[in-house]
Amino acid sequence: MAKKKFAKNSVTIMTEMVLPNDTNTLNNLMGGRLMHWMDIVAAIAAQKHSNRIVVTASADSISFKQPINLGNVVTLKAQVTRAFNSSMEVFIEVTAEDIPASKKIMTHRAFFTFVAVDQNGRPIEIPEVVPESEEEKELFDGALRRRQLRLVLAKRMKPEDAQELKSIFNLEGPTT
Amino acid sequence: MAKKKFAKNSVTIMTEMVLPNDTNTLNNLMGGRLMHWMDIVAAIAAQKHSNRIVVTASADSISFKQPINLGNVVTLKAQVTRAFNSSMEVFIEVTAEDIPASKKIMTHRAFFTFVAVDQNGRPIEIPEVVPESEEEKELFDGALRRRQLRLVLAKRMKPEDAQELKSIFNLEGPTT
Amino acid sequence: MAKKKFAKNSVTIMTEMVLPNDTNTLNNLMGGRLMHWMDIVAAIAAQKHSNRIVVTASADSISFKQPINLGNVVTLKAQVTRAFNSSMEVFIEVTAEDIPASKKIMTHRAFFTFVAVDQNGRPIEIPEVVPESEEEKELFDGALRRRQLRLVLAKRMKPEDAQELKSIFNLEGPTT
Amino acid sequence: MAKKKFAKNSVTIMTEMVLPNDTNTLNNLMGGRLMHWMDIVAAIAAQKHSNRIVVTASADSISFKQPINLGNVVTLKAQVTRAFNSSMEVFIEVTAEDIPASKKIMTHRAFFTFVAVDQNGRPIEIPEVVPESEEEKELFDGALRRRQLRLVLAKRMKPEDAQELKSIFNLEGPTT
Amino acid sequence: MAKKKFAKNSVTIMTEMVLPNDTNTLNNLMGGRLMHWMDIVAAIAAQKHSNRIVVTASADSISFKQPINLGNVVTLKAQVTRAFNSSMEVFIEVTAEDIPASKKIMTHRAFFTFVAVDQNGRPIEIPEVVPESEEEKELFDGALRRRQLRLVLAKRMKPEDAQELKSIFNLEGPTT
Amino acid sequence: MAKKKFAKNSVTIMTEMVLPNDTNTLNNLMGGRLMHWMDIVAAIAAQKHSNRIVVTASADSISFKQPINLGNVVTLKAQVTRAFNSSMEVFIEVTAEDIPASKKIMTHRAFFTFVAVDQNGRPIEIPEVVPESEEEKELFDGALRRRQLRLVLAKRMKPEDAQELKSIFNLEGPTT
Repeated sequence: MAKKKFAKNSVTIMTEMVLPNDTNTLNNLMGGRLMHWMDIVAAIAAQKHSNRIVVTASADSISFKQPINLGNVVTLKAQVTRAFNSSMEVFIEVTAEDIPASKKIMTHRAFFTFVAVDQNGRPIEIPEVVPESEEEKELFDGALRRRQLRLVLAKRMKPEDAQELKSIFNLEGPTT
Repeated sequence: MAKKKFAKNSVTIMTEMVLPNDTNTLNNLMGGRLMHWMDIVAAIAAQKHSNRIVVTASADSISFKQPINLGNVVTLKAQVTRAFNSSMEVFIEVTAEDIPASKKIMTHRAFFTFVAVDQNGRPIEIPEVVPESEEEKELFDGALRRRQLRLVLAKRMKPEDAQELKSIFNLEGPTT
Repeated sequence: MAKKKFAKNSVTIMTEMVLPNDTNTLNNLMGGRLMHWMDIVAAIAAQKHSNRIVVTASADSISFKQPINLGNVVTLKAQVTRAFNSSMEVFIEVTAEDIPASKKIMTHRAFFTFVAVDQNGRPIEIPEVVPESEEEKELFDGALRRRQLRLVLAKRMKPEDAQELKSIFNLEGPTT
Repeated sequence: MAKKKFAKNSVTIMTEMVLPNDTNTLNNLMGGRLMHWMDIVAAIAAQKHSNRIVVTASADSISFKQPINLGNVVTLKAQVTRAFNSSMEVFIEVTAEDIPASKKIMTHRAFFTFVAVDQNGRPIEIPEVVPESEEEKELFDGALRRRQLRLVLAKRMKPEDAQELKSIFNLEGPTT
Repeated sequence: MAKKKFAKNSVTIMTEMVLPNDTNTLNNLMGGRLMHWMDIVAAIAAQKHSNRIVVTASADSISFKQPINLGNVVTLKAQVTRAFNSSMEVFIEVTAEDIPASKKIMTHRAFFTFVAVDQNGRPIEIPEVVPESEEEKELFDGALRRRQLRLVLAKRMKPEDAQELKSIFNLEGPTT
Repeated sequence: MAKKKFAKNSVTIMTEMVLPNDTNTLNNLMGGRLMHWMDIVAAIAAQKHSNRIVVTASADSISFKQPINLGNVVTLKAQVTRAFNSSMEVFIEVTAEDIPASKKIMTHRAFFTFVAVDQNGRPIEIPEVVPESEEEKELFDGALRRRQLRLVLAKRMKPEDAQELKSIFNLEGPTT
């Protein structure tokens, strides 16, 4: 049976410089390039947790508010939050820095899920995640709720069965 | 004031071959590369509708079920579904073909939103979308619901104000 | 024996954005990058017609008149015009758009030929092309003439045997 | 007035290794990638002759007979053959080597033309070419004939005015 | 005058996956690609220390002993060791992991130097480095010796003036 | 036993144009990209000499003095200087040209070493190098000294055993 592993063991940090071909006409980083980087850093974190080949299972919705500019240094930090049999959720935080201007902003938070597979591409069981810090515990707890939302949105779970989602949508209605 | 435009005017088709650098150890297309392509084709569709520079505002959650293999031909079709002042939703359908094997499968459906901006990056009003076909009308109608879900998930709308979401989550509660 | 297929079944559309690394010092798309894209879209069209692996056999002469600018959206449409045993001719039309300026121009027309091969790289018979529209019929008819020109230029056919070429070069001479 | 320059002054040599992303399913170099490299090496040769920014004007028809394999070393040698006011013809020879197998083959010969332009993209007069070796003189002489063929194919010259082409197509007819 | 900064403030971590185009015929990472990554991660560390645009001044000799394989995850950690007016030395440690095989090896140690420049490319003074940990202090101390070696090798310092080098080369001669 | 080969037989020339993605914020070629090109051209020269697969063993220290600008044409010339059983030293000279400005400067000189290996990655004996020109002889003679320096720096040779190094560092001390 698969053993347990600490959340922090999967931490993966990636640093990228925004080059001309990564930008649009306004010299801002294109959203698709950022999602590409997120997928790579998150896949490596998922590999570290599972010691397996992993394939992307889903990307949660991502909102792009802050433009990131040409020449900025982008740091992506990924960490597995929780495992479910053969799948795991990875949390990604993105920071962008304009170093000569000494400006550093947290720009994005995203969640991807991955499935660990064997050489024939079949799902395979992975270790459980042991959260330690406060933030890791919070991410661990929220993982269940985010998973139900994914299943409901993918029409693989009925909303009324999504117990954990109630806290977001007040599903209990006005009678409560 | 901005004039109306037909949904079909924004249709954009992109074709890509899956090359070695796009794949993981199992010779399958990496999810991040596909999201990168989705962002480009959707941005071009949004440009065609608005005749403006556009920036990615959000990507809805994407589920990766079908692996796409090395050497496959990937076709992405994007089309603007609905406009909201300066933002618009784009629907993307992805098909993968193993041509020598005569296999063609619909692999992904995704929604991205974009904001049209002027040369200084400020949002600018865009034409309304006029849906014509049955599918276009259905996408147009659903756009409102998906928009409320985005706002609720981004904590910019209270769930109880998301009238359109009720049909998904039975938000009316047990009293109904 | 190989069956017949409609010309339209091979239609392939590719959309590309002109990025900084694709351009020369004048911020115009380099001719070589465009030929690279032409080869890819045409190879996919040839694959669709033949359901085979294909290899580029030739590119007809291409003239670059209109510059295409950084940030333009380039659309390439390829379609098989006619098959000859194991080889086929593909017609490629290129359109460039400066979308914010609402300018769209037809920039290039080109012909490539491909050979369908089996897994060992040996030529293999392919279906005939059935043209339907007026344009398809015209392309089908012209394919024979273009083929003779290719053979004469490659010194694999004597000019006097190139019956179809006479219409271009008035090869019958002053006695007519 | 522009001065004369020796043909050999424009010689440019480029060496490339065939990497996985350059190849098709048979592990052969894709034709489009080779044309891309041809355009770059030829543009540099044209720059060396003219000391100007240059833009690709045309690529003559290219025939792909010899497959070039993954891991091969490709050497491209380009040289300006002749100048015509602001345009020049460049000859490109391609050699492919499988070095561990000690195999080296001449694989392609191609002709591209370029126009020298000023910073505003306007054509500008360039030096004449002075051929020295036997091969350079032959290429210089043939340049006129190839130019007429380009003009006839582009429908910018009537076949009966293409004096130099007669030697290829026996245009004088049977009465001669 | 420039203020002092802690060595640890410049730590930069970059993670890369070895993709097919990064490898040679033996499926090992090419040395040049690794040096390219080293330069990027070290430049970012130098930017973080100086809050300036930086340009690479030198790379010390690098020895490639351990092959790194296709699919490996490569982690590069860079940190400024010491500043000299406008230049600084950066230490880079490279680790390669075959994650499914649970193998992780320290593969390379390298030193690059960078110069901080203003917008016109002129050298500009930077903060001093304050080492804290034992390793940081050792790197700080060794920086002087490595600098003298660079100057001697570049023939910008006479060997007999390189006091710090004596410990390596026993320059004091047989009298010791 | 391996036969002898002339130094000139390994000469390899590579030409590259500096594109936007190769440059830093000052529009200068990044050092890492140049080292990447050096490694490729030197590896091809080493392959030509040995007719074997080769792997990079080391890069000597490189100094970057002259900036190379966006749009420049970079020419790299590599040549094997001397062989040692299964390893060889390659000399690389880099020239940068701003062709429209008629400026051409020799920018870098570098030495890399490579090991020839068989299909299993095991070192294999290679031909000796026969230098002919004055420059080739000088490079051949210096190769021994540079090799000792590499070994001393890698701590695989004691400084006092490095006979050839004495000429650089006056290792014989004040008694001479």
